[in-house]
Amino acid sequence: MHRSRLGTVVIDCAEEEYESGVDFWAGLLGKEALPTDGPRYASLKGRVGGDGGPLILMQRVPPAERAIHLDIETDDVEAEVSRLEKLGARVKARIDRHVVMVAPTGHPFCVVPVYRRDFPAKATEWPDA
Amino acid sequence: MHRSRLGTVVIDCAEEEYESGVDFWAGLLGKEALPTDGPRYASLKGRVGGDGGPLILMQRVPPAERAIHLDIETDDVEAEVSRLEKLGARVKARIDRHVVMVAPTGHPFCVVPVYRRDFPAKATEWPDA
Repeated sequence: MHRSRLGTVVIDCAEEEYESGVDFWAGLLGKEALPTDGPRYASLKGRVGGDGGPLILMQRVPPAERAIHLDIETDDVEAEVSRLEKLGARVKARIDRHVVMVAPTGHPFCVVPVYRRDFPAKATEWPDA
Repeated sequence: MHRSRLGTVVIDCAEEEYESGVDFWAGLLGKEALPTDGPRYASLKGRVGGDGGPLILMQRVPPAERAIHLDIETDDVEAEVSRLEKLGARVKARIDRHVVMVAPTGHPFCVVPVYRRDFPAKATEWPDA
């Protein structure tokens, strides 16, 4: 058995738009922006929808990668990747402990190990094969 | 005073990938997919993060528009558009009662009138000028 949940909605901002972008998205949602894991990331304080809900994270990226993507947080990355491959996703890259996958709809997303203390709140349990 | 909240995370799927995409995203999150507002939309049952949290909605779009975007739900569209223009967003289009805006980071998003019965749960109050 392993567990996963929608951990984060990541707003990938082009380098030159990042600083103003953090202020904008914080202002739009009325949440304070907090630097997170160095100068490439800022997260909005609090969860969307309450305890166990997703974070909103802004990330600096090259301009061509501007997008919004989802991070799936799990207590077993390999089991979750295997489960999602069976649903039709494919692995695009492995970066440290993160796995970048691509959905059958072409949307990239990430499978990431548990990074929030409130896990497994709102996580779904999956029986492993 | 008006109110707004993050209402929906919209997964814009290319036409030919839509059917398999609905199944994939439903399976990924372990939620049932429900047809919503006709053949162009399906939403996942339940809110992300619990009461007042966002919906996940899949939408059919032309292939060039594949993306993920956010819908901001509000009880006063014009007041919310005006507030977001002051934060740096601009209006791109008006479609029925929806307003498509573009963030200073280049990400399109929509401002939409209240469409869920639980509004204003988790909404933020904004004093109007």
